[in-house]
This record gives sequence, structure tokens and C-alpha cells, in this order.
Amino acid sequence: MESLIIIGAGLVGTALSIYLKKRGYRVTVYERSEDVRATLKSTRPSVNLTLCERGLCGLDRIGLRQIVERASVPAYGRFIHHWDGEMVYQPYGREDQALYSISRNELNSVLLNAAEENGVRIVFSTRCLDIDLGTGEVRLEDASGHSWGETPTCAFAADGCFSTVRSRLQRKERFDYSQHYSTQGYCELHIPADVPGLSALPRNGLHLWPRLGHMLITFPNRDGSLTCSLHLPFEGQPSYRSLSGESELLELFNADFSNLVPLIPNLSTQFFEQRPNTMLTIRCSPWSFEDKVLLIGDSAHAILPSYGQGANVGFEDCAILDEIVGRYAPDWKRVFTAFEQARKPEIEIVADLCYEHFVELQKSTLDATFQLRRRLERRLHELFPSRFATLYSMITFTSMPFSEAMKIDREQQKVIDKLVRYPNIADRLEQKDSQLWLEKMIHDSRPSQLSLSRL
Amino acid sequence: MESLIIIGAGLVGTALSIYLKKRGYRVTVYERSEDVRATLKSTRPSVNLTLCERGLCGLDRIGLRQIVERASVPAYGRFIHHWDGEMVYQPYGREDQALYSISRNELNSVLLNAAEENGVRIVFSTRCLDIDLGTGEVRLEDASGHSWGETPTCAFAADGCFSTVRSRLQRKERFDYSQHYSTQGYCELHIPADVPGLSALPRNGLHLWPRLGHMLITFPNRDGSLTCSLHLPFEGQPSYRSLSGESELLELFNADFSNLVPLIPNLSTQFFEQRPNTMLTIRCSPWSFEDKVLLIGDSAHAILPSYGQGANVGFEDCAILDEIVGRYAPDWKRVFTAFEQARKPEIEIVADLCYEHFVELQKSTLDATFQLRRRLERRLHELFPSRFATLYSMITFTSMPFSEAMKIDREQQKVIDKLVRYPNIADRLEQKDSQLWLEKMIHDSRPSQLSLSRL
Repeated sequence: MESLIIIGAGLVGTALSIYLKKRGYRVTVYERSEDVRATLKSTRPSVNLTLCERGLCGLDRIGLRQIVERASVPAYGRFIHHWDGEMVYQPYGREDQALYSISRNELNSVLLNAAEENGVRIVFSTRCLDIDLGTGEVRLEDASGHSWGETPTCAFAADGCFSTVRSRLQRKERFDYSQHYSTQGYCELHIPADVPGLSALPRNGLHLWPRLGHMLITFPNRDGSLTCSLHLPFEGQPSYRSLSGESELLELFNADFSNLVPLIPNLSTQFFEQRPNTMLTIRCSPWSFEDKVLLIGDSAHAILPSYGQGANVGFEDCAILDEIVGRYAPDWKRVFTAFEQARKPEIEIVADLCYEHFVELQKSTLDATFQLRRRLERRLHELFPSRFATLYSMITFTSMPFSEAMKIDREQQKVIDKLVRYPNIADRLEQKDSQLWLEKMIHDSRPSQLSLSRL
Repeated sequence: MESLIIIGAGLVGTALSIYLKKRGYRVTVYERSEDVRATLKSTRPSVNLTLCERGLCGLDRIGLRQIVERASVPAYGRFIHHWDGEMVYQPYGREDQALYSISRNELNSVLLNAAEENGVRIVFSTRCLDIDLGTGEVRLEDASGHSWGETPTCAFAADGCFSTVRSRLQRKERFDYSQHYSTQGYCELHIPADVPGLSALPRNGLHLWPRLGHMLITFPNRDGSLTCSLHLPFEGQPSYRSLSGESELLELFNADFSNLVPLIPNLSTQFFEQRPNTMLTIRCSPWSFEDKVLLIGDSAHAILPSYGQGANVGFEDCAILDEIVGRYAPDWKRVFTAFEQARKPEIEIVADLCYEHFVELQKSTLDATFQLRRRLERRLHELFPSRFATLYSMITFTSMPFSEAMKIDREQQKVIDKLVRYPNIADRLEQKDSQLWLEKMIHDSRPSQLSLSRL
């Protein structure tokens, strides 16, 4: 029986192990950290993430969709908090469409349990030191410093954005690589479930405080608590550098996030006891070396978290790789090449989208024209669901290729371009006859006949 | 006395050591390879490069300009060889303006001699294993495997495009980095001085065989021989992959470089005994870590060789850094930051230019409109040297900042845009009254009053 090694028991490595195990391979996963399940209850929630359709599809095919949905909190829209205290709700999609908020460690635990139930061998506290690209030998070291080599049929590097395997590939000739850091970092602040006044923040959505250049988001947890993610530049005003003490921090919060101040206990301690997390975009090529090793997930293509796509794209990677394994294995070189050919152009698109959305989240959500365009899109999508979709809903609530979503959106934006120039369009949207009238506008604009049947 | 370590005794490391020694520092250079001077006579010429004004300026200030010019062969223009055998000469600039062709190892030898004469200590066969960014300790290892650490006042990493120091910085947070390989590689073929028929290729210029997608260039050596640089894609048709044997190689040469076939002895042996060299663009930031270490030359910013700027930009780095050292040392952190601020935007421009010129050299040199534009530029430069300069001459025959050259060129291209649309412009250029008439055209176009006084 062919034996496969996966490096990294994070979200992608664990999901992939289940896919490959189900295909009948002997699968061992090596993870440098300890088992997250051991400390899950004792520590406060880890970084939150949101799963959407493409991530859930990736989990569905290994039987985990319902389990993960039940372990998450659905968020049906975003609540935008303006400076003046106004709170505006924007649904993400249709009434039944939600993002699923879950802590990374809880999601990882669900996956680890499922992997072990499926017979995957997971070895913790064991790191990959290196891979010999000539022989395919993976060099490993356990916590006691004992090291040894194993030579699997092939290896999968799901070892994240600071991948050891990728740094080995990078030293090969003709490996294109870039890592680009965001000028912002984020830190996590915890709001306990029992804090008075929390009911002012409805739990059925994410809350956003966009503040031109910085931003705060809250994610709901299953225990009733909220996780705040504060995005702030490293340099400038305000920034991690400028917030040198408690008074500067409180000044920022009182000015920009005043309704949160009474909700976050020990704000200053929470803020100053952590180092902000960096965010980066990684692009590289090729993702594989011969039939020896394939990069997958963040090790191949880390993206900014702004579109909530990192984990989703990672699970989608697993599902698509699984199909290709079914088609071409045991010709692993062909599997690896076909996977990169299928995925690389899609990931390039979503990497750019994440970068643009990151800027948009902070600025344009406050901009009137931006708001009007989004309202028009949502109205058209509501009235003509099979003929008009928002880009956000195509990315988030379908698993159509990113390239197809972009193509459809480019056509649709031409319609919106015409509509926003129409006199009193905002008022007309509210009128009773708007459906008939918008239909005529759309018809006159002759949008291309792109199929939205999958929506 | 402050002691400085330079990692790498290549062109930039050696030139920098002389600059810093002249400022009174104790300077040690560690080089992983053997002393190139030991094998200079026994091996055939290494890779050739051409020095232009900005590189020569960088050498002038350490007293090496004349010495290097005398060790080189001046090339006053390029000879373009067309498919049909036609050979067209294009001067690079004015009659007295030349590129200086020299083998990399010979140039390196001149610099090593000068560094030692100036009292720089150069230690060969000793590689930098790592640098401790906390303490600034440089870990070194000699040829016998003995390793030790040294902690200088600060270190300069002139260790080239595969820099060990940069790979250490890359593992720090928030280090932006990209390496992008050209899809082409080059290999060197040698034409001895005594081969019959060599006189058909005039020695006062470079010779180019642009062939849409691949290309051959010859560089003159001082001993009368020529070095050919064959640029070919790695994949496709023709490519290093497609040229699998002698018959495919000869087929290519007979079709595309037929006049060279009788001049290159043992073509097939020469071609197949080497692995093609890769070419890459490296961009990163920041170039330094606190007051501990600075990347300089290729380690900070490798560029494609197409514009012949790699070594020139490296020597310019040294001269500019020297000025900044004079201003801010011993505040090394400020020195390093000021250097990157001054150089990074300039290098970004030349990196892009090199990439564009690489494409242009292969394609557009054969294109009629391209030829006409270049002829117009040269004619205007000839007639109005203080009012119109070619971009090439500004890059190559001045040391004005790249950013300024680009700004001037953008204005000038508007004039050329108008001229190429003029009926029978090619004929009019040859007419006696062309000076008066072109002057009127230029005047009517109201080009901005950018100073070209440095030309």
C-alpha cells in the first residue's frame, strides 16, 4: 500500500488526510505543535474564522459539513457601526445564507477527531527539519531532539505560510516566490458572554467598525462570547507604535469604538500582553517538485484574511486535489502538475480580491456611492436572483470558480455603472414600481447571458 | 577603531571595502570561493559584462576608472544581424561614448588587487553560515570546517542573489521579498582570437542576433577573442529542452546564427558541457536590520542583465552609500535607512527597465516603427544634444537618477509620438533642411524645460 506523509496537522493537512485515507492510502500526519485538543478548554478562544459555501463543500465530501455547522455560529450579515453611533445592517445574501463563525482551534479539533476516526495516524510535537528532493526523504525530529528520516510514496506540505518545505524549494533554481506583508497587523480582544450590555450587539452577524485606515470586527462564539479582531497599522497614527500606553489606547477606543469600551474587560492588559499578528500574501510557483512533494493551502498561497477565504480556499484545495488524485494517481507528478494548473489561476484572483476587499472594508463601507452601488446590487439580486448576483454572494455562497465569478461581475458592474448615473436612483429604488423599471433597465443594458443557475 | 565585515568579495563587496577603508575603518571581507586571481589565466574567460558611465563613476571615486577602462574593450554601438545576413550598425551614443566590455573575473581581480593595496583584509574560502540578528554576530566557517563567530560594528552583505544574510532576514516578520525567474537562461560560447573569418565581426561593438524569443550577443575580449551569450527559453521551441542533441543544435544555429557556425569551434561540446545560467529579479524590503547589517548590490536587488546595469548599479550603490556614511556614521541605523530611502525607488525603476529592455532586445530591434522611433531619437539627440537625449544614453552615459531619466523620457516620447505620425518622416530626416524643420516641430511640441546639462 502506498504510504503518504502530510506535513502539518492544521486545517488543510487534517482535512487532506481524511480525503487521502478514504482513497485507501496509508496516511501519516506530522505536526510540530502539541495536540490543540489538549488545551482547547483551558485557553481562551483562538483566532476566529468564518466558513462559507466553498469551505463547507470541501468538508461535505468528507462528511463534516453538518458537524462543523453545528459547532459554529451563523452570521447572516454585517452590522456597520458609524462614528456617530448609527448601526446599519447589511445582509450578506438571502435570508438563509450565512457565514459560519468558529474558532480555529475548535474547527481543528473537529477535523483531528474525524481524521483519527478514519484511521489517519497523527504524530504531534514532531517537526519536519527538511526534505531531500533527490530521494524524497522527509527528515523529522521529535520533541526530545531525536531525528530520523522517512521516505513516503510522496509528501504533502500543509505546513502553513512559513513552510519549511517551501523554503527548501525556494533554494532550487527557477522557483518564483514572493511574500508581501500587509502594513497592518491584528490582535484579538475577548468579550465574555456575561458582560452587561452585550445584547446591544446582535449575535446573528459580524460587527464592523470601519475607521479609514484601521478597523475592528467582532465574531460570535458558541458560548455567547465575542472575539474582537482589531486591525491597526504597525506605523503611523494611530498604530501599534503610536499606542505606547494605556492612555493612548483608551483615547483611540473612546474616539472610534466607544460602544465597545464598557464591554471589553481589562482592555489595556488584553491589548498589551500580546504581539500583533502579521498578515501576508504568498505567491509561488511551481507548487511541487517532480513526484516527491506538493505544497497545499497556505504554504502554496497565503492570502489576506479580509474576504474570509483562507480556510475555505484550503478546504476547496483538498476537494479539488482529491478529484485529481482519483483521475491520475499513482502518476503523482501528473497529479501535482494538474492540481497547480487548475488552482493557481483561481488563487491569483482570490489573492487580489482579498487585498482589494481589505482596503474596501476600511474605507468604502462608509462611502455613499459605494453604499449605493452595493444597495443596487443587492436589490437586483433580490429581484432577479437568477439573472444578477453580487460578487460577494458568488464568492461566498457558491463554489463556482473565482474566475467565473469575476467574469460575471465585470458584466454586471456595467449595469450598475448605468444605474448610478440615473437621476434620483436612491429614491426610485424605494418606489413600488422599481421592479418593473429595474427590469427594463437591465434588459436595455443587455447583460451577457452568463449562467447564474448555481446560485 | 570601528571594524566592519563585508560578506562577499565579488564586484560590489570589493569596491565597497575600498570605499570604507578609505574612510578609516578596519575592513575584513569574507568570501566563500577561492581567490579568482589564482585561476584567472588557466580558465577561459568568465561571463562578460559592460561598464557604463554610472559604474565607471562609482569606480572613479576610488581611483579605478582609468585602470578598468584600460583593461576593457570599448564598444561604441551594436551590430544587428538580420535573418537575411544584413548587418545594421546602431551607435550607442555620440562618437566618443562607449560601453566597456570586460570579463567579470578580470574586473574582480583588478578590484581585489586594489582592495589589498588599500589595506583591506580579504579572507577567501570562508563562508558566512548565518548572522545573529540579536547580537550582530557573524558565523563563519573555513574550508576545513572550522567555524567561529565575529561581532563587528556592523556587517554588509554583498553576498549576491542567493544571499545567506537575506535568507535570515526573510525569516523575520514583515520582510517583503520576491524572486522572479526569467523563462530564459543563457550560456556562454567562446570564439578564439585566431579563428579564420573573425574580421567579419567588427570588434568595436557588441553583435546581436535578435530572433523573436531567443537571441545571441557577442562581447569583445581584450585578447581578441569573443564571448557569445546565447539566450534561450528553458521550455518551448526552440529551448534548452528541445535542443536535445547535436543535430537540433546545429539546425538552430544554421537557421538563426549561420554566420557564427564556422567561428565557434566545438560548438556542440561547448554547448552541452554546461548548464544554462538562470536570470532573476529580486526585490525586497527592508534592506537592513537595525544597526547590524545592510544588504547591498545583488543581495538587495538582483536585476536582469539585459540593460547591462547589474554591476553598474552595484558600484553606484557603493558611491552613494559612501556619501551617506560620510553624513551619518557612526549612526549606522540612520545610514542604512537613508541608503534604502535613496536607492530603493531608483532600483525599482531600473529593474522594470531591464525587464522591458529584455523583451525589446529580442523583438522590437527588428520592428520598423521601433527602428524609426530610435532613429528619430538619435537624430534629435545629435542635432540638439542639450535639449533631447535618448533614454538609453541617459541611463548609460550619465549618472543622473533613473527617476529623472524616466521623467525626461516621458516628455520626449510625446514629441516622438507626433513625429512618427508625420507623412514621409523617414525621408524628411535625410533632407538637408531637417534640422530647421525638426527644431520647429520640437518647439511647437513645447517639451518641458527639463535640464539635460549633465549629458
